[in-house]
Amino acid sequence: GVVFISALIYSMVTGDKQSLAADTPSIAEQDTLRKRESGITATSPMRLRMEALIKAKQREIVRALEAIDGGKFLTDTWTRPNGGGGISCVLQEGKVFEKAGVNISIVYGTLPRKAISQMRVNHKALDPDVESLEFFAAGLSLVLHPNNPMAPTVHLNYRYFETANADGSTNAWWFGGGTDLTPSYLFDEDVIHFHRTIKEACDQHDKNYYSRFKKWCDEYFSVKHRGETRGVGGIFFDDLDESEKDQESLFAFSSTCLDAFLPSYLPILKRRKDMPFTDREKQWQQLRRGRYVEFNLVHDRGTAFGLATPGARIESVLMSLPLTARWQYMHEPEIGSREERLMQVLKQPVEWVE
Amino acid sequence: GVVFISALIYSMVTGDKQSLAADTPSIAEQDTLRKRESGITATSPMRLRMEALIKAKQREIVRALEAIDGGKFLTDTWTRPNGGGGISCVLQEGKVFEKAGVNISIVYGTLPRKAISQMRVNHKALDPDVESLEFFAAGLSLVLHPNNPMAPTVHLNYRYFETANADGSTNAWWFGGGTDLTPSYLFDEDVIHFHRTIKEACDQHDKNYYSRFKKWCDEYFSVKHRGETRGVGGIFFDDLDESEKDQESLFAFSSTCLDAFLPSYLPILKRRKDMPFTDREKQWQQLRRGRYVEFNLVHDRGTAFGLATPGARIESVLMSLPLTARWQYMHEPEIGSREERLMQVLKQPVEWVE
Repeated sequence: GVVFISALIYSMVTGDKQSLAADTPSIAEQDTLRKRESGITATSPMRLRMEALIKAKQREIVRALEAIDGGKFLTDTWTRPNGGGGISCVLQEGKVFEKAGVNISIVYGTLPRKAISQMRVNHKALDPDVESLEFFAAGLSLVLHPNNPMAPTVHLNYRYFETANADGSTNAWWFGGGTDLTPSYLFDEDVIHFHRTIKEACDQHDKNYYSRFKKWCDEYFSVKHRGETRGVGGIFFDDLDESEKDQESLFAFSSTCLDAFLPSYLPILKRRKDMPFTDREKQWQQLRRGRYVEFNLVHDRGTAFGLATPGARIESVLMSLPLTARWQYMHEPEIGSREERLMQVLKQPVEWVE
Repeated sequence: GVVFISALIYSMVTGDKQSLAADTPSIAEQDTLRKRESGITATSPMRLRMEALIKAKQREIVRALEAIDGGKFLTDTWTRPNGGGGISCVLQEGKVFEKAGVNISIVYGTLPRKAISQMRVNHKALDPDVESLEFFAAGLSLVLHPNNPMAPTVHLNYRYFETANADGSTNAWWFGGGTDLTPSYLFDEDVIHFHRTIKEACDQHDKNYYSRFKKWCDEYFSVKHRGETRGVGGIFFDDLDESEKDQESLFAFSSTCLDAFLPSYLPILKRRKDMPFTDREKQWQQLRRGRYVEFNLVHDRGTAFGLATPGARIESVLMSLPLTARWQYMHEPEIGSREERLMQVLKQPVEWVE
């Protein structure tokens, strides 16, 4: 989970729309009307196109994961009177997945002044002189924890954010997201495949994206108190707005990244999900799960924000946690072991593709 | 763990004594000399008496826990060139304990200006106009996680803090501490026994202590994002200084509390450690362990302080985490079940003794 997702959850609680002017329809009202009258097309506002994209991708990913696991996701759907809503899909104790969560959230809400001034650091288009702003946020977030310790955990999140002027026109907007891989045992070919697939997706849009966002990912997913990264990285980006590229290009980039997810991960999962493993290897996976919990509870900005929000949907905020985890005092991998090799890579991030 | 323990660890890293005046011996030097010349007696400075107390209590508690478990604690001892040191005793995967840690730390160090101004909120005796202050800190901290889900987890921490004037005399000092019980299954007689034993210890010193410190404990050990307490409470206090009572009385109070630990907990452990239990009950314990992790990683001030300290001994900071834990999406105890009964008590703290 990243900041944005908690912003979504936050708004689910507090963001009931207060009409800014009684005679101006809110963006939620405009969007509801638009969807009813003409559906969602390539000329619809970005809000509706993003909503359509993440809904389609959630269905596609859930279907693919069910096919590989054999089990069914449980689906929780909620709607909000003002037009927002969310769908949480969770599969627990499956044949392949210990725990898998694939969530979308679509939120129409109101940003208070304090949030606006915080966001202005990265988005100068935001008007600092208003008491509140209507906003829209939509995102897809997933975390998959497989049973087999040879199969890596994967995380993905893509999101779009927009604020509206008093007349309902778009004020500021930006995209964020990324995906990263967290193995317990390192198979170089897996990590190279994952990074290469992401890089190819990035390269279609900008030859600099992969290296910029790979570095950002290593920096963000750092378990600072351990001096190690959470996993072997991937990409991470936030606040991509008109100062980066036009809206259409960034939507296309996010869409390509989402398309790349199943090709980046499924071949790895298929290779690893039925590999033999020992109790000792399962235990190492459990220790690594503990580190995942440490990152998510101690360092992840989105989780912190969600947990600090009175009345937030805690089960959604904490859906990223593994089913099981372990903390063993002073555990040290043996010199020359596979476990030690992983730790070296986590302490010193590697360039996996040229 | 509480704030203090991390202050200890912090100082283990950064607190190398910088002589304030070359001709004035540091309190560490004074104490080393005193111990060599005359040992520790009832007329020694409080620093040395506290050190002797927690060392004796650590030995006593470790011995009693080994007797009940049958296993041996691993002991890590470290010393610091300037006179401080620590002893970590940990027993993992024992017959009775999944994980048990009993730590002491004794630290001589230097408080930077920023820490002084933060501490001044509670301790007006601290001089706000100095760049740094010598300090001493000593504490005993323990967390016991038994295997059997019918046997509760218990936490205890007692600590003493002191700052020195430039001439080596005592400037400010205070005591802190407490103990609290975290069952997965509620046995009223256990909780009543625990609270009654603590109350009797408190009542020997002040008839108001138990009710004040019981309330403080319920407030501090609150898993705020879940709207529940970590366990069924006990006592918690901090910053008890001359505005509360004289040093001698507060030392005697801490000493009585430490004496009360084994009588408060061992009878409960003996009743529960060999009780039969089902897989489902073990799993509920694992879910409750997850909540313990959530409190310690998200809310505990001492853990946060320790993790934010560059170079801290992370294995000591996180020794309080259970060996294993579990997070299950949307788990709800059945209506009328024992699990639900526990949740009711955690959502609405109970007065266990009059």
